Amino acid sequence: MHPTDLARHVSRTWTRSHNLDSMIPGAWSCLHDSTENVKTNLSPDEMRAVVESGQGTLWVDIDIRDEQAVKLLSEVFHFHPLAIEDALNPQSRVKIEEYKGFLILIVRTIAFVEQTEDPYDIETVNLTCFLGKNFLVTAHGGQTSPVDQTRGVIDRNPELARAGAARLMHAVVDEAVNAYFPILDQLDEFMDGLEDRVFNAFDKTALREIFSVKRLVLSLRRHLAPERDVFSVLTNRPSTLLTVDTQVYFRDIYDHILRINDALETYRELLSNTLDSYLTQVSNRLGTVTKALSVVATVSLPFVVVSGMWGMNFEYIPLHGWRHGFWLMLAVQIGLGALLLLYLRWRKLL
Amino acid sequence: MHPTDLARHVSRTWTRSHNLDSMIPGAWSCLHDSTENVKTNLSPDEMRAVVESGQGTLWVDIDIRDEQAVKLLSEVFHFHPLAIEDALNPQSRVKIEEYKGFLILIVRTIAFVEQTEDPYDIETVNLTCFLGKNFLVTAHGGQTSPVDQTRGVIDRNPELARAGAARLMHAVVDEAVNAYFPILDQLDEFMDGLEDRVFNAFDKTALREIFSVKRLVLSLRRHLAPERDVFSVLTNRPSTLLTVDTQVYFRDIYDHILRINDALETYRELLSNTLDSYLTQVSNRLGTVTKALSVVATVSLPFVVVSGMWGMNFEYIPLHGWRHGFWLMLAVQIGLGALLLLYLRWRKLL
Amino acid sequence: MHPTDLARHVSRTWTRSHNLDSMIPGAWSCLHDSTENVKTNLSPDEMRAVVESGQGTLWVDIDIRDEQAVKLLSEVFHFHPLAIEDALNPQSRVKIEEYKGFLILIVRTIAFVEQTEDPYDIETVNLTCFLGKNFLVTAHGGQTSPVDQTRGVIDRNPELARAGAARLMHAVVDEAVNAYFPILDQLDEFMDGLEDRVFNAFDKTALREIFSVKRLVLSLRRHLAPERDVFSVLTNRPSTLLTVDTQVYFRDIYDHILRINDALETYRELLSNTLDSYLTQVSNRLGTVTKALSVVATVSLPFVVVSGMWGMNFEYIPLHGWRHGFWLMLAVQIGLGALLLLYLRWRKLL
Amino acid sequence: MHPTDLARHVSRTWTRSHNLDSMIPGAWSCLHDSTENVKTNLSPDEMRAVVESGQGTLWVDIDIRDEQAVKLLSEVFHFHPLAIEDALNPQSRVKIEEYKGFLILIVRTIAFVEQTEDPYDIETVNLTCFLGKNFLVTAHGGQTSPVDQTRGVIDRNPELARAGAARLMHAVVDEAVNAYFPILDQLDEFMDGLEDRVFNAFDKTALREIFSVKRLVLSLRRHLAPERDVFSVLTNRPSTLLTVDTQVYFRDIYDHILRINDALETYRELLSNTLDSYLTQVSNRLGTVTKALSVVATVSLPFVVVSGMWGMNFEYIPLHGWRHGFWLMLAVQIGLGALLLLYLRWRKLL
Amino acid sequence: MHPTDLARHVSRTWTRSHNLDSMIPGAWSCLHDSTENVKTNLSPDEMRAVVESGQGTLWVDIDIRDEQAVKLLSEVFHFHPLAIEDALNPQSRVKIEEYKGFLILIVRTIAFVEQTEDPYDIETVNLTCFLGKNFLVTAHGGQTSPVDQTRGVIDRNPELARAGAARLMHAVVDEAVNAYFPILDQLDEFMDGLEDRVFNAFDKTALREIFSVKRLVLSLRRHLAPERDVFSVLTNRPSTLLTVDTQVYFRDIYDHILRINDALETYRELLSNTLDSYLTQVSNRLGTVTKALSVVATVSLPFVVVSGMWGMNFEYIPLHGWRHGFWLMLAVQIGLGALLLLYLRWRKLL
Repeated sequence: MHPTDLARHVSRTWTRSHNLDSMIPGAWSCLHDSTENVKTNLSPDEMRAVVESGQGTLWVDIDIRDEQAVKLLSEVFHFHPLAIEDALNPQSRVKIEEYKGFLILIVRTIAFVEQTEDPYDIETVNLTCFLGKNFLVTAHGGQTSPVDQTRGVIDRNPELARAGAARLMHAVVDEAVNAYFPILDQLDEFMDGLEDRVFNAFDKTALREIFSVKRLVLSLRRHLAPERDVFSVLTNRPSTLLTVDTQVYFRDIYDHILRINDALETYRELLSNTLDSYLTQVSNRLGTVTKALSVVATVSLPFVVVSGMWGMNFEYIPLHGWRHGFWLMLAVQIGLGALLLLYLRWRKLL
Repeated sequence: MHPTDLARHVSRTWTRSHNLDSMIPGAWSCLHDSTENVKTNLSPDEMRAVVESGQGTLWVDIDIRDEQAVKLLSEVFHFHPLAIEDALNPQSRVKIEEYKGFLILIVRTIAFVEQTEDPYDIETVNLTCFLGKNFLVTAHGGQTSPVDQTRGVIDRNPELARAGAARLMHAVVDEAVNAYFPILDQLDEFMDGLEDRVFNAFDKTALREIFSVKRLVLSLRRHLAPERDVFSVLTNRPSTLLTVDTQVYFRDIYDHILRINDALETYRELLSNTLDSYLTQVSNRLGTVTKALSVVATVSLPFVVVSGMWGMNFEYIPLHGWRHGFWLMLAVQIGLGALLLLYLRWRKLL
Repeated sequence: MHPTDLARHVSRTWTRSHNLDSMIPGAWSCLHDSTENVKTNLSPDEMRAVVESGQGTLWVDIDIRDEQAVKLLSEVFHFHPLAIEDALNPQSRVKIEEYKGFLILIVRTIAFVEQTEDPYDIETVNLTCFLGKNFLVTAHGGQTSPVDQTRGVIDRNPELARAGAARLMHAVVDEAVNAYFPILDQLDEFMDGLEDRVFNAFDKTALREIFSVKRLVLSLRRHLAPERDVFSVLTNRPSTLLTVDTQVYFRDIYDHILRINDALETYRELLSNTLDSYLTQVSNRLGTVTKALSVVATVSLPFVVVSGMWGMNFEYIPLHGWRHGFWLMLAVQIGLGALLLLYLRWRKLL
Repeated sequence: MHPTDLARHVSRTWTRSHNLDSMIPGAWSCLHDSTENVKTNLSPDEMRAVVESGQGTLWVDIDIRDEQAVKLLSEVFHFHPLAIEDALNPQSRVKIEEYKGFLILIVRTIAFVEQTEDPYDIETVNLTCFLGKNFLVTAHGGQTSPVDQTRGVIDRNPELARAGAARLMHAVVDEAVNAYFPILDQLDEFMDGLEDRVFNAFDKTALREIFSVKRLVLSLRRHLAPERDVFSVLTNRPSTLLTVDTQVYFRDIYDHILRINDALETYRELLSNTLDSYLTQVSNRLGTVTKALSVVATVSLPFVVVSGMWGMNFEYIPLHGWRHGFWLMLAVQIGLGALLLLYLRWRKLL
Repeated sequence: MHPTDLARHVSRTWTRSHNLDSMIPGAWSCLHDSTENVKTNLSPDEMRAVVESGQGTLWVDIDIRDEQAVKLLSEVFHFHPLAIEDALNPQSRVKIEEYKGFLILIVRTIAFVEQTEDPYDIETVNLTCFLGKNFLVTAHGGQTSPVDQTRGVIDRNPELARAGAARLMHAVVDEAVNAYFPILDQLDEFMDGLEDRVFNAFDKTALREIFSVKRLVLSLRRHLAPERDVFSVLTNRPSTLLTVDTQVYFRDIYDHILRINDALETYRELLSNTLDSYLTQVSNRLGTVTKALSVVATVSLPFVVVSGMWGMNFEYIPLHGWRHGFWLMLAVQIGLGALLLLYLRWRKLL
């Protein structure tokens, strides 16, 4: 079949087998062939026809919460059951695996989150890509920004889709990885203000935020550190599904992942450092306060002793009747206090 | 011999050699051949016949505390003495080793535990698998959940056993690894509540639980980190006993192990982080209390000094006879206290 | 074309196509051919001619903030769009990548910084080099010292430029890496003085400086650790653009990078060590002050007790009328204080 | 020469060259040939004859403190001077090295120790094995348990010796490595009791023991971490002196070493964790005590202030003559104290 | 030219070209040929003759502070400018690099140090070796012990020099590495005494020494960790300048370096451990002192309260006129104090 006939052929197939049941709400799809024809929302039979024809670029986006859409994975695309299982499990590890005739790539991206009180409570979700010779199947739970944005891009620039399924996957995954940069910027800003908050303002809420941010950093690293290996494989390992020219594009994403990981590692160490500094400063302040307390106690001591003595009810108290007894004792007590302070300072106790 | 005749052949052998002694309580066994015949509780001679025939799928499950059952390992299956020693030692390290004609795989799984007070006191035990061309021997101490669950699965779906001994081993080991996920969920829940307990409720029991959980995490990691290498070998190294198709299944377990290890690593760091934050907060609170103490002491100081002076028993005390002496002194003392507090605050001592 | 004719040929080309618009303010350029001819500020057409001729050594330095200059990258040199994107993004990771016909090297160097209050607030910027067979294109934002210094060097010693584009790149990158050494010297000096400040002078500002310096060290390491890999590739991987003789020169830079990284790693550990020591010393001092406070409180105790008792207003007070009551009580109180101190010391409480 | 004649031949040689000087007290030796002949305490000439014949299995055990015995290494066995130097230096690193005609293996084992006060003060010593085609030379300082135990084993089971020098070395080294397990058990027990001691009993001696145990763990790790590489080489690297069958036995030791190293690593982290928890608990207790102190001080404050005021000697004191003045003031002071406590609690200062 | 004629030939050359200027004070040299002739202090022309002849073993030791001596490197030996630059830069990283016709080895050794107050203030310096086919050039700043000691060795045992330049380099480098062992012994001794100082004597100067020693350990590690790679290369990589027999000798040094690195790593961890223990003990002591303080304050409380009340000047004071009022109040106050202490202990506050 001549490639430019594909869309038309599919349309015809579509006409023949079309019925409303075959339109699956959880599976958006579009087909670009080498002419400028674009067709969206294909029926399962149409998809099957494209996959068999091996021509054009078919993109199917599947919401894994829709059972009917999920069935397409096994019934239309005949993916390996283990691969499908990985795509459906929201806890799957990020990975790249080659099966016969397709490869599966799972990346972790930022989920749309409801506005919570804690700005560092960011949720991440899996985005699965199945890449075949002439098709890309993306699978995820709920609306995912990278997919929506790439749809927008190919609406404006269908050339991208015509460059092949691998380039299309690059576009989706690139968006998925770039979604982390705004968070890095937010973390950078947090780090920049941190020094001032800890050392100048001595902001006590900083402690809890350091904890939250470190938690975020650790959780991001948990998903992004394995992506390093994944994109290293995509960039370097020869594959029949990825041409060397396309791998150059994935090298670009690999670079972004390395940059994000470097940044996370630096943040982690910086936060540990800050926590240690904070603890030390807390101790410093405690020392200062305790020193003040000791000065107060030391100054009190002669008054407690001397005033206590002369406050006792005896008939015979020294100097009791002397005119200047009071003033002498005042001088004695102040003098004793001063001597004590000097002594403690000399002994480096204060 | 034609494969479908195996079970019948074994039955005949069994009839001939059967005596009660050959039924070993610590060794459960079952044999699936390519027809739908299933035979359980084979005698040693029957097992020997199956091993020699090289046909069907034989699974023998051995309780290593039963001496007679253990003898099967050497006398029926002729495993290498070092391999048997590894299977019998409850302290053996998780490992995969190939010997001539079989491979030994030791994994660590969760033991059935008596209900203890400490929910983080989880015990792990070894589960050993010997995989041959057409047989799987599992060995363990006491009842082990993965074995029981797989037995249930092949009762319902004998196809699994017919897929070969390697797929049977996959099923057992998969259950053994999946046994960790409920614990991860429990740890996740603990982590989620931890922030609130440490920062809002300032829950002092948290310290001990952090300690217990960290201990659990470290002990799990001790057994699971080497499993990473074990399953990497199972997945990637060519072996006559594992077809490439079967290795795809072990790649799945490898992935789970990686995921568990990532999670444990993150928990470990998060717990260290929490411990540091907790310590810092304890110090913070100490500082606050000490500051309150210093304020009290500072406010007391002028009263100790001035009231002490005027409380002394002299005949001639300044202002003694003046009408407003008491009120003046009260004002003086309050004023001095206020000045002291201002001074200390100005010097940033409080 | 005979190589020595290149500059003349280009001049002629230049004469033909010259118009003022082709002089781009953000792109300085110079051309050395194998004779001693030097030509600066070439027009785009002249550059194109040199690149096509494959002779002489062309260096173009581009300010990435000048749009017209940036256009040269794609329109004259036809670099890959991803490579140009990397050069323009100030956040790009340091890297070395080979494309068809050229390689791109991004290193991180010290930016010219406005004098800030914090001497450890050092900013780093990217410097991108595109190396072709007979040309070097450097790209950066704003004025960069390594480029300026290398320009000065080739003014004085044009031989360097005639040694080829790779040696020219070596000169630029060498300056870029050497820019770190003054900072290392500064850090070394800081480290040397630190021990004295922390242990003898007990300088409280040290805490904040330790924090700042550690931050600087971590941020330098973030950019310099990946340069290790970059220069390892430049030194060891065979490339058509770098002869083995030239790689020896890059081995030299690789060595500098290793040295800087070793130093940073040591500083990082030393600073952690210092922070721990500092914290311990703060605690030590707190212990001493608290001990002094306890001594004061203990000495006060008998006076509070005994003087308090005898200060009460009862009609019948023991010893009230005895001549030596006062002195006896004084002796009793001092004696009690001394006994208490001895007791506490004996119990090792003080 | 026919192998079975070896012992007889050696005996004859021995008869010829025998004189008392050739009996070396620091060198015990035994020779097993393929018949059941066993000969012990060979003279140097006899040893030389065995080595030259290349038949039988000769084991020589040398006390490196006996000069004459040490001479055997160079004069009878002609080992490389560097290998001999390594055997004699008690500080040598554990290692495996192949020389021409023999290999040297140095492992670290537990020394017989005098009973010391500190149960965690365990000394380790080197045990050197020279393995040749048909001989094993073990060298060590003083009595070493692994050698003695293996001697006992081959007395009871001479088959082991007849299995060849490599299997003999396996037996010795296996004992040397197994000597660590009782210490691991002891450490395990210590760890188990630690949680209770730190959290329930708040046992202050725990601190010192944690320190000692960590020191032991670090020192064991220092010698055992390199043994990992040593046994990995013994297990995997092809060698003319070790058959593949024998290497299976060393794989077993390799496994033990891995297990010991895993355990040590876990202990190290667990001890760090405990130390941090302990420090945090110490701080916690300090906070509690300080809070109690603050309560006491706060309750005192109104009495110091009010009682101080009314204790001053003025002629005109408010309420002085009023009947209920005393009780009013008592109520006022108690009320003020209660208010203060409430205020501080409200401000979260207590 | 026949080898045995070399020294004579050189002497003749020397006679011809000799003038006083050619005797360079900063360059000591000696030439051993295969006969027993030894010639020292060769002129530059003589050296050039030896290098060209390729026979005998020439050792030239150069003081890099002497300009004339440094010129020999380029003018006589024609080393690569980058190699010479590395030799002259006192900050060069330890390294091994092969150039055409020679290799350069830079190791770090202990400098002769003036006696300083701080016994842990050890300075290290670079020692550079250029190894050619028949010559060794050592370069360093100032007097270096390894060179002097090796000179002494070849004076007593010229055989060593005749074994070739590589063996000569081994001798020099061996001394350079062995210079670290006395420092390790000193550190070992420090570690042994540390436990007692920290736990029994509670020696406060220990803190500063721990800091100094850790600093020393980190600085040694900074130079010695890269030597691991350097000697691994020397031992394993095939080289035309090093025979396999000679490499066995360098394997020995490699082993020493590994041992030193292991020890440094263990010291580093042990010191961190000690610092943590020390901090915990400081906190422990603070807790004890604060507890004592709280006991004192608690015992004071009833006296402050009750004595304060009865010390007020009212006309009507309860029990004022009663005979046993004083004793009753004494009992009341002591009883209250005891009750308070019991209460606080019961609440676990003390």
